[in-house]
Amino acid sequence: MENFRFYNSVEIIFGKGTENLAGKEVKRYSDKILLHYGGTSIKKIGLYEKIIKSLRDAGVTFYELAGVQPNPVLDMVNKGINICRENNINFILAVGGGSVIDSAKAISVGVPYDGDVWDFFMGKSKPSTAIGIGVVLTVPAAGSESSTVSVISNKDALLKKGFHSNLLLPRFAILNPEVSFTIDPFQTACGAADTISHILERYFTPTPKADLTDRLCEGAIRSIIDNVYIVLKNPEDFDARAELMWASTIAHNGILGTGRIEDWASHKLAHELSILYGTIHGAALSVIFPAWMKYVCRHNIRRFFQFAVRVWGVDPCFGTEEEIALKGIGKFEQFLKDIGLPTRLKDLNIGKDADFAQMAAKELQWGPIGNFIKLNKDDIVNIYKIAL
Amino acid sequence: MENFRFYNSVEIIFGKGTENLAGKEVKRYSDKILLHYGGTSIKKIGLYEKIIKSLRDAGVTFYELAGVQPNPVLDMVNKGINICRENNINFILAVGGGSVIDSAKAISVGVPYDGDVWDFFMGKSKPSTAIGIGVVLTVPAAGSESSTVSVISNKDALLKKGFHSNLLLPRFAILNPEVSFTIDPFQTACGAADTISHILERYFTPTPKADLTDRLCEGAIRSIIDNVYIVLKNPEDFDARAELMWASTIAHNGILGTGRIEDWASHKLAHELSILYGTIHGAALSVIFPAWMKYVCRHNIRRFFQFAVRVWGVDPCFGTEEEIALKGIGKFEQFLKDIGLPTRLKDLNIGKDADFAQMAAKELQWGPIGNFIKLNKDDIVNIYKIAL
Repeated sequence: MENFRFYNSVEIIFGKGTENLAGKEVKRYSDKILLHYGGTSIKKIGLYEKIIKSLRDAGVTFYELAGVQPNPVLDMVNKGINICRENNINFILAVGGGSVIDSAKAISVGVPYDGDVWDFFMGKSKPSTAIGIGVVLTVPAAGSESSTVSVISNKDALLKKGFHSNLLLPRFAILNPEVSFTIDPFQTACGAADTISHILERYFTPTPKADLTDRLCEGAIRSIIDNVYIVLKNPEDFDARAELMWASTIAHNGILGTGRIEDWASHKLAHELSILYGTIHGAALSVIFPAWMKYVCRHNIRRFFQFAVRVWGVDPCFGTEEEIALKGIGKFEQFLKDIGLPTRLKDLNIGKDADFAQMAAKELQWGPIGNFIKLNKDDIVNIYKIAL
Repeated sequence: MENFRFYNSVEIIFGKGTENLAGKEVKRYSDKILLHYGGTSIKKIGLYEKIIKSLRDAGVTFYELAGVQPNPVLDMVNKGINICRENNINFILAVGGGSVIDSAKAISVGVPYDGDVWDFFMGKSKPSTAIGIGVVLTVPAAGSESSTVSVISNKDALLKKGFHSNLLLPRFAILNPEVSFTIDPFQTACGAADTISHILERYFTPTPKADLTDRLCEGAIRSIIDNVYIVLKNPEDFDARAELMWASTIAHNGILGTGRIEDWASHKLAHELSILYGTIHGAALSVIFPAWMKYVCRHNIRRFFQFAVRVWGVDPCFGTEEEIALKGIGKFEQFLKDIGLPTRLKDLNIGKDADFAQMAAKELQWGPIGNFIKLNKDDIVNIYKIAL
């Protein structure tokens, strides 16, 4: 097991009706906030009205900044920073999924920073302070509500970059699974794929022994598999929605990565698809992860054997270790198809004319990526090709 | 799934050599502290010297209060409160296992409180503030390093009582598995039993659906089972010791109880043995838990079937559901014996002459106990009798 530090101070407020506590929770930190959200979806499901009422009842003044899109952009972050500065706002309530939360996080460190907030994403500077954030989660997927990371796209630079800091941890995150009832099947599946990917990035480690977190990862993935099928059949099954929502948080709050080196190559390859083709994050991961697995599995076949047996219930005795390992990857890919996700680039209308070499070069400009094995340019091109 | 709040702000600092960071970590909070510990064991393994050096190097002044015993007592807590008050101490470093940490926690809320600190344990008052605590853990068992609870014995009143508060969360907990190398086989087994019990108290829930936490609980127990056998064979296996130490923290940091009603009847029955007979906590649980299981399992045989199949690998097809459930309990009891623990009261030299009715009456004075099923006086007597 590797040495580690684990710190996660987010207060999780989980369950039915919890969105009505937003105002009261915010009030513990501030009387005047930025209310940050996406588009019309929170209005359609009546969540916006509830939040507004809750804030008003608690006597909280709010400025609104709406319009966050999937793969949130730097321009919006800078808009938020300006609003906060101009109005002396010291708290942000993010109502939405990972994109809204990541945007709020970037704003929170940008407000008190003298330089360009993009510095943090480029590793040029580290934030020393931040204004507070609270979250009302709508989409279980990114896990941003309880993570130390923010990922932002800079369209001018054609870059999608993330950075970590404990300062990015929200003060609280309100999670009511009921608000996820209206998420359509495709987005539900994307969320599940995103959550599973966060676990897999930790599961496929070069650390030789990290048994407890192996077990926790395996259990969490199995729970997601079982519950996503239920939700796709019955979108208003509270318990199954609740499992998916809580899993999305646990997958990315750091606990499943304790004591082990994490990989994160697949996320980088998937980010490239999002920035170039606007691919939804979960769908990009659904294409990249099986291809990555097929390419790297022989590096540690025993680990993929374990994945096959413990997660996918493959018979550990029938066939060679490699055959069993490959069966596990096959079952994973079939699962992604079953829940309606693309598993090949052609499903995303991305073809052979894509310049994989250039994409690889861009990803590698800050050094080799991945830790399960370090990927070089050829490796990355090969993975994209397997995904064709 | 039940609505819940989850908050755990303890910074975990885990791994080899981390005890040498104690002074630096303490210094973030205070220049003058109470150093609280047990007896000679931390001196024998050289930990005391390292901590002292680390504190001195960081320029931290310390007052010492040693002598905490298993099942820590109120008298010691009051001593600590007086030392802190007399010397204007606002931080405690607890170096030890659950007893030392629980003692430090009680001191931390007692120092700023006008009344008798025992009020908190009797539910007569709630703390509104506390001085800070840091932990250097020596014994993986109680999980107190990352829990919101303190359990103290009041010998005058013949009571062992716990109370919960987020104020009891340590600021940091330093966990170096190497310091657990010298824990003898019996104490190692007691620690594993304690850890497993913390999970079982959450696992056996009346909440009908809490699949994710079921899976996490099952994975954690399986990891403990596998690793305790390794440690008993090779006490200096770092990775196996690390799994047990990290499991003991995760078992009791709240995450495995999220979304579910917890039981905690067995702990109350075990506490009674500790207060009356001085039984080590883990050994008391090892006796009580199998008996509790045998008594309550027919209330929800399906849950014990799941326990048997998923945790103990019992064939889910051979025999009736009840037979399979009972096999699981049998395997659990056999495991406890295998690792050298008592599983019957007679192993503790507690016999039929014990006044179970009186013990039950004492436990029930604040109402029925347990949630998997609520236990009344007859139930408790029957469980003790099964344990004979």
